[in-house]
Amino acid sequence: MANQAIVRHARKEDCPLILQLIQELADYEKESAANQATVPTLEATIAFAPSDATGPKTSTTPNTEPTSSTKPARCLLLFTPEGESAGMALYFYNYSTWRAKPGIYLEDLFVRETMRGRGYGKRLLVELAKETVGMGGGRLDWVVLKWNEPSIKFYESIGAKAMSEWVGMRVDNEGLQKLAKLLD
Amino acid sequence: MANQAIVRHARKEDCPLILQLIQELADYEKESAANQATVPTLEATIAFAPSDATGPKTSTTPNTEPTSSTKPARCLLLFTPEGESAGMALYFYNYSTWRAKPGIYLEDLFVRETMRGRGYGKRLLVELAKETVGMGGGRLDWVVLKWNEPSIKFYESIGAKAMSEWVGMRVDNEGLQKLAKLLD
Repeated sequence: MANQAIVRHARKEDCPLILQLIQELADYEKESAANQATVPTLEATIAFAPSDATGPKTSTTPNTEPTSSTKPARCLLLFTPEGESAGMALYFYNYSTWRAKPGIYLEDLFVRETMRGRGYGKRLLVELAKETVGMGGGRLDWVVLKWNEPSIKFYESIGAKAMSEWVGMRVDNEGLQKLAKLLD
Repeated sequence: MANQAIVRHARKEDCPLILQLIQELADYEKESAANQATVPTLEATIAFAPSDATGPKTSTTPNTEPTSSTKPARCLLLFTPEGESAGMALYFYNYSTWRAKPGIYLEDLFVRETMRGRGYGKRLLVELAKETVGMGGGRLDWVVLKWNEPSIKFYESIGAKAMSEWVGMRVDNEGLQKLAKLLD
């Protein structure tokens, strides 16, 4: 079933749909108020496929605007064979120094609640793996909440390994402003 | 002292130096053989500042080639006031969905062993925070080995928080090839 789903890069006019999916993801994570994205901010930060692309594409060959510091994100949308929107993957390019190779970092993977159990999440991961391989990339990375053991088991079942020896560090909000001025 | 160091984006002709620093980092982590980078692969994957830039720049205003799927990486080099190379930061752009904002992911931060204790690591982090703020970015992210408590304490002292509730997942090497073909 997952093989018959349609996967294509997002176009600018998909932003209301992308926002809807992001909000459903925030609701699912019980973080409804955390989503600050809007249609204009999504339009300004995602590298889109051309609007005149004729019909949905199943290929994930990079066919979007170039990414940049202001537009680092790319977005894959997944639709049922009947054309109903079912999920998305938001991602950007990463880099492995020791390989001197690019890769893909999956920021958000989401399948709508009513669309689960059909292999759509796996399909999106497969498309990202194809894109990583296709661009000569070295790795596909993402993070998962530690308590989410069913997801971790699923990811391990498709070949992912947990990077348990590492911990992420983050500077944001006031901390970021402060750090930028630390040596002034 | 850290304030007087010279920080600038790498140019193509800096690749032998970058490779040297990467190798020193691998040696330091007792992973000497893990480094597969070469001058040509670095040249092919880093977005460089123009070679005709007149003299080192202290500004980190993006002044490099555009990043792309094949050239996602950017590199800041740090030199002593006398012009001796002392360290580097290799990074790429990331993305926060809920903010719909770009940010910076620091892949590798390295200060040469003889150059430590001068605040150079902090200086590189400050430059990255400036660049993140300057591009309207939302966050500066990186990972650290969990056993490396002195580093974690240092990072926390400059405003970073540990993302302890998350674990990284990775698919690479044969696993990546296999995942790309999983639904074929």
